[in-house]
Amino acid sequence: MTALPHNILPFVHSLLSQHLKAGDCVADCTAGNGQDTLFLAQSVGKTGQVFSFDIQEIALQNTRQRLQDAGLIEPVKLILDGHQNIDCYIRTPLDAVMFNLGYLPQGDKNCTTNVDSTMIAIKKSLKLLRKNGILSVVLYGGHENGKAECVAVEAFSGRCKQQDCDILRYQFANRPKTAPYALIFRKMADEIIFRQPESI
Amino acid sequence: MTALPHNILPFVHSLLSQHLKAGDCVADCTAGNGQDTLFLAQSVGKTGQVFSFDIQEIALQNTRQRLQDAGLIEPVKLILDGHQNIDCYIRTPLDAVMFNLGYLPQGDKNCTTNVDSTMIAIKKSLKLLRKNGILSVVLYGGHENGKAECVAVEAFSGRCKQQDCDILRYQFANRPKTAPYALIFRKMADEIIFRQPESI
Repeated sequence: MTALPHNILPFVHSLLSQHLKAGDCVADCTAGNGQDTLFLAQSVGKTGQVFSFDIQEIALQNTRQRLQDAGLIEPVKLILDGHQNIDCYIRTPLDAVMFNLGYLPQGDKNCTTNVDSTMIAIKKSLKLLRKNGILSVVLYGGHENGKAECVAVEAFSGRCKQQDCDILRYQFANRPKTAPYALIFRKMADEIIFRQPESI
Repeated sequence: MTALPHNILPFVHSLLSQHLKAGDCVADCTAGNGQDTLFLAQSVGKTGQVFSFDIQEIALQNTRQRLQDAGLIEPVKLILDGHQNIDCYIRTPLDAVMFNLGYLPQGDKNCTTNVDSTMIAIKKSLKLLRKNGILSVVLYGGHENGKAECVAVEAFSGRCKQQDCDILRYQFANRPKTAPYALIFRKMADEIIFRQPESI
Protein backbone atom coordinates (compact mmCIF):
# COMPACT_ATOMS: atom_id res chain seq x y z
CA MET A 1 0.00 0.00 0.00
CA THR A 2 1.46 3.36 -0.96
CA ALA A 3 1.79 6.10 1.64
CA LEU A 4 0.47 8.64 -0.85
CA PRO A 5 -2.79 7.39 -2.34
CA HIS A 6 -5.01 9.75 -4.30
CA ASN A 7 -7.89 9.67 -1.81
CA ILE A 8 -8.32 10.18 1.90
CA LEU A 9 -9.78 6.79 2.90
CA PRO A 10 -6.90 4.61 1.63
CA PHE A 11 -4.58 7.18 3.13
CA VAL A 12 -6.14 6.68 6.57
CA HIS A 13 -5.94 2.90 6.09
CA SER A 14 -2.26 3.20 5.16
CA LEU A 15 -1.52 5.15 8.35
CA LEU A 16 -3.53 2.89 10.64
CA SER A 17 -2.15 -0.31 9.13
CA GLN A 18 1.27 0.71 10.39
CA HIS A 19 -0.09 0.87 13.94
CA LEU A 20 -2.51 -2.03 14.21
CA LYS A 21 -1.43 -5.56 14.99
CA ALA A 22 -3.01 -8.98 15.46
CA GLY A 23 -5.01 -9.21 18.66
CA ASP A 24 -5.82 -5.48 18.91
CA CYS A 25 -9.21 -4.27 20.09
CA VAL A 26 -10.75 -1.60 17.85
CA ALA A 27 -14.02 0.09 16.88
CA ASP A 28 -15.61 1.31 13.66
CA CYS A 29 -18.08 3.98 14.76
CA THR A 30 -19.66 4.31 11.31
CA ALA A 31 -19.98 0.87 9.72
CA GLY A 32 -21.59 2.15 6.51
CA ASN A 33 -20.96 -0.48 3.88
CA GLY A 34 -18.27 -2.11 5.97
CA GLN A 35 -15.15 -0.92 4.20
CA ASP A 36 -13.45 0.29 7.41
CA THR A 37 -14.78 -2.64 9.46
CA LEU A 38 -13.28 -5.10 6.97
CA PHE A 39 -9.99 -3.20 7.01
CA LEU A 40 -9.96 -3.34 10.83
CA ALA A 41 -10.85 -7.05 10.88
CA GLN A 42 -8.02 -7.77 8.44
CA SER A 43 -5.63 -5.75 10.61
CA VAL A 44 -6.43 -7.29 14.00
CA GLY A 45 -7.14 -10.82 12.72
CA LYS A 46 -9.05 -13.62 14.39
CA THR A 47 -7.37 -13.05 17.74
CA GLY A 48 -8.51 -9.41 17.73
CA GLN A 49 -11.86 -7.77 18.37
CA VAL A 50 -13.76 -5.26 16.23
CA PHE A 51 -16.88 -3.40 17.40
CA SER A 52 -18.84 -1.95 14.51
CA PHE A 53 -21.70 0.52 14.99
CA ASP A 54 -24.46 1.76 12.72
CA ILE A 55 -28.04 2.93 13.21
CA GLN A 56 -29.16 1.56 9.82
CA GLU A 57 -29.96 -2.16 9.56
CA ILE A 58 -29.05 -2.10 5.85
CA ALA A 59 -25.55 -0.83 6.71
CA LEU A 60 -24.94 -3.69 9.12
CA GLN A 61 -26.35 -6.21 6.59
CA ASN A 62 -23.92 -4.92 3.95
CA THR A 63 -21.08 -5.01 6.45
CA ARG A 64 -21.93 -8.57 7.55
CA GLN A 65 -22.01 -9.71 3.90
CA ARG A 66 -18.65 -8.10 3.19
CA LEU A 67 -17.08 -9.74 6.25
CA GLN A 68 -18.58 -13.15 5.43
CA ASP A 69 -17.26 -12.95 1.87
CA ALA A 70 -13.80 -12.32 3.30
CA GLY A 71 -14.15 -15.05 5.96
CA LEU A 72 -13.66 -12.45 8.67
CA ILE A 73 -16.98 -12.23 10.51
CA GLU A 74 -15.53 -13.97 13.58
CA PRO A 75 -13.70 -11.11 15.32
CA VAL A 76 -16.47 -8.55 14.59
CA LYS A 77 -19.39 -7.58 16.80
CA LEU A 78 -22.01 -5.67 14.79
CA ILE A 79 -24.04 -3.25 16.92
CA LEU A 80 -27.31 -1.66 15.76
CA ASP A 81 -27.10 1.49 17.84
CA GLY A 82 -25.79 5.05 17.63
CA HIS A 83 -22.06 5.51 18.20
CA GLN A 84 -22.86 7.97 21.00
CA ASN A 85 -23.67 4.90 23.09
CA ILE A 86 -20.25 3.30 22.52
CA ASP A 87 -19.54 3.20 26.27
CA CYS A 88 -22.56 0.92 26.80
CA TYR A 89 -20.86 -1.78 24.74
CA ILE A 90 -17.13 -1.35 25.29
CA ARG A 91 -15.32 -1.31 28.61
CA THR A 92 -11.83 -2.42 27.54
CA PRO A 93 -9.21 0.03 26.23
CA LEU A 94 -9.26 0.47 22.46
CA ASP A 95 -6.22 0.49 20.19
CA ALA A 96 -7.98 2.39 17.42
CA VAL A 97 -11.33 3.96 16.58
CA MET A 98 -12.48 5.01 13.11
CA PHE A 99 -15.13 7.55 12.11
CA ASN A 100 -16.14 8.13 8.51
CA LEU A 101 -18.83 10.79 8.80
CA GLY A 102 -21.68 11.67 6.46
CA TYR A 103 -24.27 9.40 4.87
CA LEU A 104 -24.31 5.78 3.75
CA PRO A 105 -22.88 5.54 0.22
CA GLN A 106 -25.72 4.56 -2.14
CA GLY A 107 -28.08 5.04 0.83
CA ASP A 108 -30.52 7.68 2.05
CA LYS A 109 -28.69 11.00 1.83
CA ASN A 110 -31.02 12.49 4.41
CA CYS A 111 -29.79 10.00 6.99
CA THR A 112 -26.43 11.49 7.93
CA THR A 113 -24.33 11.50 11.06
CA ASN A 114 -25.33 14.33 13.34
CA VAL A 115 -23.01 16.87 14.94
CA ASP A 116 -24.29 16.37 18.50
CA SER A 117 -24.10 12.57 18.59
CA THR A 118 -20.84 12.63 16.62
CA MET A 119 -19.19 14.88 19.21
CA ILE A 120 -20.43 12.69 22.09
CA ALA A 121 -19.11 9.61 20.31
CA ILE A 122 -15.71 11.16 19.59
CA LYS A 123 -15.31 12.33 23.20
CA LYS A 124 -16.32 8.93 24.61
CA SER A 125 -14.06 7.15 22.11
CA LEU A 126 -11.08 9.28 23.11
CA LYS A 127 -11.71 8.28 26.73
CA LEU A 128 -11.86 4.59 25.74
CA LEU A 129 -8.70 4.86 23.64
CA ARG A 130 -5.57 3.49 25.30
CA LYS A 131 -2.44 5.64 25.56
CA ASN A 132 -0.78 5.67 22.10
CA GLY A 133 -4.06 4.64 20.51
CA ILE A 134 -5.25 6.25 17.28
CA LEU A 135 -8.63 7.78 16.44
CA SER A 136 -9.35 8.76 12.84
CA VAL A 137 -12.14 11.02 11.61
CA VAL A 138 -12.91 11.52 7.92
CA LEU A 139 -14.93 14.70 7.46
CA TYR A 140 -17.08 15.89 4.56
CA GLY A 141 -17.88 19.60 4.38
CA GLY A 142 -19.98 19.28 1.22
CA HIS A 143 -23.39 19.03 2.92
CA GLU A 144 -25.00 21.00 5.75
CA ASN A 145 -24.56 18.48 8.57
CA GLY A 146 -21.05 17.81 7.34
CA LYS A 147 -20.14 21.49 7.54
CA ALA A 148 -21.40 21.66 11.12
CA GLU A 149 -19.38 18.55 11.98
CA CYS A 150 -16.21 20.06 10.48
CA VAL A 151 -16.66 23.22 12.57
CA ALA A 152 -17.37 21.28 15.77
CA VAL A 153 -14.56 18.72 15.40
CA GLU A 154 -12.04 21.43 14.47
CA ALA A 155 -13.03 23.60 17.46
CA PHE A 156 -12.79 20.58 19.75
CA SER A 157 -9.38 19.63 18.29
CA GLY A 158 -8.04 23.12 18.82
CA ARG A 159 -8.82 22.83 22.55
CA CYS A 160 -6.96 19.56 22.97
CA LYS A 161 -3.64 20.10 24.75
CA GLN A 162 -0.63 19.47 22.52
CA GLN A 163 1.23 17.36 25.09
CA ASP A 164 -1.78 15.07 25.61
CA CYS A 165 -2.65 14.35 21.99
CA ASP A 166 -1.19 14.84 18.53
CA ILE A 167 -3.90 15.79 16.05
CA LEU A 168 -2.80 15.72 12.44
CA ARG A 169 -4.88 17.17 9.63
CA TYR A 170 -4.50 15.61 6.16
CA GLN A 171 -6.15 17.35 3.28
CA PHE A 172 -5.62 18.00 -0.40
CA ALA A 173 -4.47 21.58 -0.98
CA ASN A 174 -5.70 21.73 -4.59
CA ARG A 175 -9.22 20.35 -4.21
CA PRO A 176 -12.42 22.22 -3.33
CA LYS A 177 -12.76 23.24 0.32
CA THR A 178 -15.67 20.81 0.59
CA ALA A 179 -13.46 17.81 -0.35
CA PRO A 180 -13.18 15.13 2.36
CA TYR A 181 -10.24 15.36 4.72
CA ALA A 182 -9.00 13.52 7.80
CA LEU A 183 -8.07 14.33 11.36
CA ILE A 184 -5.95 11.72 13.12
CA PHE A 185 -5.78 11.82 16.91
CA ARG A 186 -2.92 10.05 18.66
CA LYS A 187 -3.52 9.91 22.40
CA MET A 188 -0.34 10.43 24.37
CA ALA A 189 -1.61 10.70 27.96
CA ASP A 190 -3.84 8.55 30.12
CA GLU A 191 -6.31 11.39 30.08
CA ILE A 192 -6.62 14.26 27.62
CA ILE A 193 -6.97 17.75 29.09
CA PHE A 194 -8.96 20.29 27.10
CA ARG A 195 -8.54 24.04 27.18
CA GLN A 196 -11.72 25.99 27.77
CA PRO A 197 -13.25 27.52 24.63
CA GLU A 198 -12.07 31.09 24.19
CA SER A 199 -14.65 33.66 25.15
CA ILE A 200 -15.91 35.61 22.19
CA MET B 1 9.90 4.45 11.51
CA THR B 2 6.38 5.25 12.64
CA ALA B 3 3.92 6.85 10.22
CA LEU B 4 2.78 9.21 12.98
CA PRO B 5 5.79 10.92 14.50
CA HIS B 6 5.32 13.98 16.70
CA ASN B 7 7.01 16.37 14.32
CA ILE B 8 6.72 17.30 10.67
CA LEU B 9 10.27 16.53 9.47
CA PRO B 10 10.33 12.83 10.48
CA PHE B 11 6.82 12.58 9.08
CA VAL B 12 8.03 13.79 5.67
CA HIS B 13 10.95 11.35 5.87
CA SER B 14 8.55 8.53 6.68
CA LEU B 15 6.42 9.30 3.62
CA LEU B 16 9.35 9.75 1.25
CA SER B 17 11.14 6.62 2.47
CA GLN B 18 8.23 4.57 1.14
CA HIS B 19 8.77 6.02 -2.33
CA LEU B 20 12.54 6.25 -2.72
CA LYS B 21 14.70 3.35 -3.79
CA ALA B 22 18.35 2.61 -4.44
CA GLY B 23 19.61 4.31 -7.58
CA ASP B 24 17.12 7.19 -7.53
CA CYS B 25 18.14 10.71 -8.50
CA VAL B 26 17.01 13.37 -6.01
CA ALA B 27 17.65 16.93 -4.79
CA ASP B 28 17.75 18.69 -1.44
CA CYS B 29 17.05 22.33 -2.26
CA THR B 30 17.86 23.54 1.26
CA ALA B 31 20.88 21.64 2.60
CA GLY B 32 20.93 23.46 5.96
CA ASN B 33 22.75 21.18 8.38
CA GLY B 34 22.37 18.22 6.07
CA GLN B 35 19.60 16.29 7.80
CA ASP B 36 17.51 15.89 4.63
CA THR B 37 20.57 15.36 2.42
CA LEU B 38 21.72 12.51 4.68
CA PHE B 39 18.24 11.00 4.64
CA LEU B 40 18.19 11.19 0.83
CA ALA B 41 21.69 9.68 0.54
CA GLN B 42 20.65 6.82 2.82
CA SER B 43 17.53 6.26 0.71
CA VAL B 44 19.12 6.25 -2.75
CA GLY B 45 22.40 4.62 -1.69
CA LYS B 46 25.74 4.61 -3.48
CA THR B 47 24.15 3.85 -6.84
CA GLY B 48 21.92 6.93 -6.53
CA GLN B 49 22.59 10.63 -6.94
CA VAL B 50 21.79 13.49 -4.55
CA PHE B 51 22.14 17.17 -5.47
CA SER B 52 22.26 19.39 -2.42
CA PHE B 53 21.98 23.19 -2.62
CA ASP B 54 22.73 25.96 -0.16
CA ILE B 55 23.92 29.55 -0.44
CA GLN B 56 25.82 29.39 2.88
CA GLU B 57 29.27 27.79 2.88
CA ILE B 58 28.82 26.82 6.56
CA ALA B 59 25.68 24.85 5.67
CA LEU B 60 27.52 22.83 3.04
CA GLN B 61 30.47 22.28 5.43
CA ASN B 62 28.07 20.92 8.07
CA THR B 63 26.36 18.77 5.48
CA ARG B 64 29.66 17.40 4.14
CA GLN B 65 30.76 16.52 7.69
CA ARG B 66 27.48 14.74 8.41
CA LEU B 67 27.75 12.72 5.19
CA GLN B 68 31.39 11.84 5.80
CA ASP B 69 30.58 10.64 9.33
CA ALA B 70 27.94 8.34 7.83
CA GLY B 71 30.23 7.19 4.99
CA LEU B 72 27.76 8.55 2.46
CA ILE B 73 29.52 11.46 0.77
CA GLU B 74 29.93 9.51 -2.48
CA PRO B 75 26.47 9.88 -4.09
CA VAL B 76 26.12 13.57 -3.06
CA LYS B 77 27.01 16.63 -5.09
CA LEU B 78 27.11 19.73 -2.85
CA ILE B 79 26.33 22.94 -4.73
CA LEU B 80 27.06 26.42 -3.34
CA ASP B 81 24.34 28.29 -5.20
CA GLY B 82 20.71 29.35 -4.78
CA HIS B 83 18.10 26.68 -5.45
CA GLN B 84 16.49 28.99 -8.02
CA ASN B 85 19.37 27.97 -10.31
CA ILE B 86 18.61 24.24 -9.98
CA ASP B 87 18.14 23.89 -13.74
CA CYS B 88 21.75 24.98 -14.34
CA TYR B 89 22.97 21.87 -12.54
CA ILE B 90 20.36 19.17 -13.18
CA ARG B 91 19.12 18.00 -16.57
CA THR B 92 17.96 14.47 -15.70
CA PRO B 93 14.47 13.73 -14.31
CA LEU B 94 14.30 13.76 -10.52
CA ASP B 95 12.54 11.16 -8.36
CA ALA B 96 12.16 13.51 -5.40
CA VAL B 97 12.96 17.06 -4.32
CA MET B 98 12.93 18.36 -0.74
CA PHE B 99 12.53 21.92 0.53
CA ASN B 100 12.81 22.82 4.20
CA LEU B 101 12.28 26.56 4.20
CA GLY B 102 13.37 29.19 6.70
CA TYR B 103 16.79 29.80 8.22
CA LEU B 104 19.76 27.59 9.07
CA PRO B 105 19.20 26.04 12.53
CA GLN B 106 21.76 27.56 14.91
CA GLY B 107 22.70 29.94 12.07
CA ASP B 108 22.02 33.57 11.13
CA LYS B 109 18.28 34.06 11.52
CA ASN B 110 18.40 37.01 9.13
CA CYS B 111 19.55 34.72 6.35
CA THR B 112 16.31 32.98 5.39
CA THR B 113 14.93 31.55 2.18
CA ASN B 114 13.18 34.21 0.15
CA VAL B 115 9.70 33.96 -1.33
CA ASP B 116 10.75 34.96 -4.87
CA SER B 117 13.66 32.56 -5.25
CA THR B 118 11.73 29.83 -3.39
CA MET B 119 8.85 30.04 -5.88
CA ILE B 120 11.22 29.95 -8.85
CA ALA B 121 12.97 26.91 -7.35
CA ILE B 122 9.71 25.06 -6.65
CA LYS B 123 8.40 25.70 -10.18
CA LYS B 124 11.68 24.59 -11.79
CA SER B 125 11.83 21.54 -9.51
CA LEU B 126 8.31 20.49 -10.48
CA LYS B 127 9.36 20.68 -14.11
CA LEU B 128 12.43 18.53 -13.40
CA LEU B 129 10.40 16.01 -11.41
CA ARG B 130 9.57 12.82 -13.26
CA LYS B 131 5.95 11.62 -13.48
CA ASN B 132 5.07 10.04 -10.09
CA GLY B 133 7.91 11.93 -8.46
CA ILE B 134 7.45 13.62 -5.07
CA LEU B 135 8.29 17.17 -4.00
CA SER B 136 8.07 18.07 -0.31
CA VAL B 137 7.98 21.56 1.17
CA VAL B 138 8.18 22.20 4.91
CA LEU B 139 6.87 25.69 5.67
CA TYR B 140 7.31 27.92 8.71
CA GLY B 141 4.83 30.76 9.18
CA GLY B 142 6.46 32.02 12.39
CA HIS B 143 8.64 34.72 10.80
CA GLU B 144 7.93 37.39 8.17
CA ASN B 145 9.59 35.73 5.17
CA GLY B 146 8.05 32.43 6.23
CA LYS B 147 4.55 33.90 6.25
CA ALA B 148 5.06 35.29 2.74
CA GLU B 149 6.29 31.87 1.60
CA CYS B 150 3.22 30.13 3.09
CA VAL B 151 0.90 32.53 1.25
CA ALA B 152 2.76 32.17 -2.05
CA VAL B 153 3.13 28.37 -1.97
CA GLU B 154 -0.52 27.91 -0.94
CA ALA B 155 -1.75 30.20 -3.73
CA PHE B 156 0.42 28.38 -6.23
CA SER B 157 -0.81 24.98 -4.97
CA GLY B 158 -4.43 26.03 -5.31
CA ARG B 159 -3.86 26.76 -9.00
CA CYS B 160 -2.37 23.35 -9.72
CA LYS B 161 -4.85 21.12 -11.59
CA GLN B 162 -6.06 18.20 -9.52
CA GLN B 163 -5.60 15.63 -12.28
CA ASP B 164 -1.98 16.70 -12.85
CA CYS B 165 -0.75 16.72 -9.28
CA ASP B 166 -1.88 15.60 -5.82
CA ILE B 167 -0.94 18.15 -3.19
CA LEU B 168 -1.42 16.96 0.36
CA ARG B 169 -1.21 19.28 3.33
CA TYR B 170 -0.03 17.77 6.65
CA GLN B 171 -0.34 19.90 9.71
CA PHE B 172 -1.06 19.63 13.41
CA ALA B 173 -4.58 20.80 14.19
CA ASN B 174 -3.84 21.62 17.84
CA ARG B 175 -0.65 23.65 17.49
CA PRO B 176 -0.26 27.40 16.87
CA LYS B 177 -1.01 28.54 13.32
CA THR B 178 2.68 29.43 12.99
CA ALA B 179 3.80 25.82 13.62
CA PRO B 180 5.65 24.18 10.71
CA TYR B 181 3.63 22.13 8.28
CA ALA B 182 4.23 20.28 5.03
CA LEU B 183 2.90 20.27 1.52
CA ILE B 184 3.65 17.13 -0.49
CA PHE B 185 3.32 17.33 -4.28
CA ARG B 186 2.97 14.13 -6.26
CA LYS B 187 3.29 14.80 -9.97
CA MET B 188 0.90 12.71 -12.03
CA ALA B 189 1.32 14.14 -15.53
CA ASP B 190 4.30 14.78 -17.77
CA GLU B 191 3.52 18.45 -17.43
CA ILE B 192 1.50 20.23 -14.76
CA ILE B 193 -1.12 22.69 -15.97
CA PHE B 194 -1.90 25.66 -13.72
CA ARG B 195 -5.13 27.57 -13.56
CA GLN B 196 -4.80 31.33 -13.91
CA PRO B 197 -5.01 33.23 -10.62
CA GLU B 198 -8.57 34.37 -10.00
CA SER B 199 -9.11 38.04 -10.69
CA ILE B 200 -9.83 40.06 -7.56
